Amino acid sequence: MKALGTHIVCELSGCDPVALSDLDGVQNMMIAAARIAHATILESSFHRFEPQGVSGTVILAESHLSIHTWPEKKYAAMDFYTCGDHTDPWLACLHAAKVLSAKRMLTTEFKRGIEAKNGTFTHVVTATEAKDRQRTA
Amino acid sequence: MKALGTHIVCELSGCDPVALSDLDGVQNMMIAAARIAHATILESSFHRFEPQGVSGTVILAESHLSIHTWPEKKYAAMDFYTCGDHTDPWLACLHAAKVLSAKRMLTTEFKRGIEAKNGTFTHVVTATEAKDRQRTA
Repeated sequence: MKALGTHIVCELSGCDPVALSDLDGVQNMMIAAARIAHATILESSFHRFEPQGVSGTVILAESHLSIHTWPEKKYAAMDFYTCGDHTDPWLACLHAAKVLSAKRMLTTEFKRGIEAKNGTFTHVVTATEAKDRQRTA
Repeated sequence: MKALGTHIVCELSGCDPVALSDLDGVQNMMIAAARIAHATILESSFHRFEPQGVSGTVILAESHLSIHTWPEKKYAAMDFYTCGDHTDPWLACLHAAKVLSAKRMLTTEFKRGIEAKNGTFTHVVTATEAKDRQRTA
């Protein structure tokens, strides 16, 4: 099954609320995550909400990474979506979980852009997993 | 089941390749899609690849929308992720399918940010559907 890309939909729980509120810290973490995944960064955009919370995306030559944080809930909703055999979005995901000190992460992995013989494209969920961070990073 | 947000992972097939290559057109479509979904736009970033293809994200006060296009395959991989009861990411999704003249769309809908009693957050897939555009837009 040849897919154009892999997309990880990720919920991080029990994160450090200070890290989740730190605009520069979150942006630096995401840029590092993209590099760790062997992706090429085209542009990053991050915003801090009042009184708290950060949202941002990193557009890659190989798709994108995104994050939305709720410091008051110690929660971050993240996406790691990369194309090409040279990238590994799991490396970005594990880096984010580590930097944010997540206690638990839930991930659903998709393979996207699977071409059928009739020229239509599909995606499939390959796995959903909940893990303690100690086991994953 | 109270969730913070709804995220639609979407593959659009049989799209108009000219529309998929048009940087300004794709960006305008995405900004319109965000408004149609009743979301508040914070920033949009779009890139055109050579020889073809467009990638971009719209960061919302309520999460984000994203698109990556492969005009040579008449294919777009899109995400519509919004939070709050006032938004409806399906309105954005249907708008995109219409503007890009998609012949077929495959969607998987997530509810994200579901808080368990122990304070951890989960997501669930609520539905996966493949539809002809004529039936959906």
